[in-house]
Amino acid sequence: MTKPTPQSAPPVVTRVSDATLRGFVGYHMKRAFNVIQADLAATLKPYGLRMVTYSALVLIVDNPGLRQSQLADAMDVERPNLVVIIDELERRELILREKVPTDRRAYALVPTLAGRQLCARAVAAVKGHEARLLRGLNAPDIARVLAVLKQIETTGSEE
Amino acid sequence: MTKPTPQSAPPVVTRVSDATLRGFVGYHMKRAFNVIQADLAATLKPYGLRMVTYSALVLIVDNPGLRQSQLADAMDVERPNLVVIIDELERRELILREKVPTDRRAYALVPTLAGRQLCARAVAAVKGHEARLLRGLNAPDIARVLAVLKQIETTGSEE
Repeated sequence: MTKPTPQSAPPVVTRVSDATLRGFVGYHMKRAFNVIQADLAATLKPYGLRMVTYSALVLIVDNPGLRQSQLADAMDVERPNLVVIIDELERRELILREKVPTDRRAYALVPTLAGRQLCARAVAAVKGHEARLLRGLNAPDIARVLAVLKQIETTGSEE
Repeated sequence: MTKPTPQSAPPVVTRVSDATLRGFVGYHMKRAFNVIQADLAATLKPYGLRMVTYSALVLIVDNPGLRQSQLADAMDVERPNLVVIIDELERRELILREKVPTDRRAYALVPTLAGRQLCARAVAAVKGHEARLLRGLNAPDIARVLAVLKQIETTGSEE
């Protein structure tokens, strides 16, 4: 009779392999997007904006008068989350929420002059952020990446 | 003397333009990644996994014995969030948390047979999900996208 083998101590992992995950485009995209998000957050901080308040402000400046429901659709966020974003921009007097005479329940969102000015400065800063992160990449490479990203977006929404 | 112009009603926006945001690679990446995340969530649901529990399980299967701290680093998540993930996998008996004899505060994570089997099935399903989303793209396009994503990850972490 042999004695039962004592349970061996778990092996020590000296270097964690993520080889399986690295086989997926989605994993690389998540890692790259994490980097973009962190750099974007730092870029927007001096303007008192977060990624979502920045996106909302740009959309309101580009589409003065759009309804809250249109903004929610464009940003693909739930209404309660949008309210928080809108409140923040309104409190800072970057946008106004105007009643729509023809629809008592609807609000139209319009940028203030301060909102348009801050938006222009933030957009310029974000252009700098992308130029930094994409430095060394040539225009055809970037165009190809954009084509692939658009295709993923389209394929996914067709399903 | 002219009468003050009455404030006009806000204009009606018939189609929301996201032209400014579409000028940014990051915006396209976020939209594509949202599609990937939604499709991945649906793909993993039959296995009772979420994106984070899936990633953790794959890493534990690929690196049996890795420490919780190593997993937190590899996944770039905060410790408290990791504990929730580990608890979930352990409760489902997909992994075991073993004490490390040489370090009383450390736990080594090892997959069970059930964990390895579920992991293999989930990885196969995720391969199917990527093949669906990337259909129509040729290998050189995908390779170029991967190169760009890796470069963004590297450039960002150098700053």
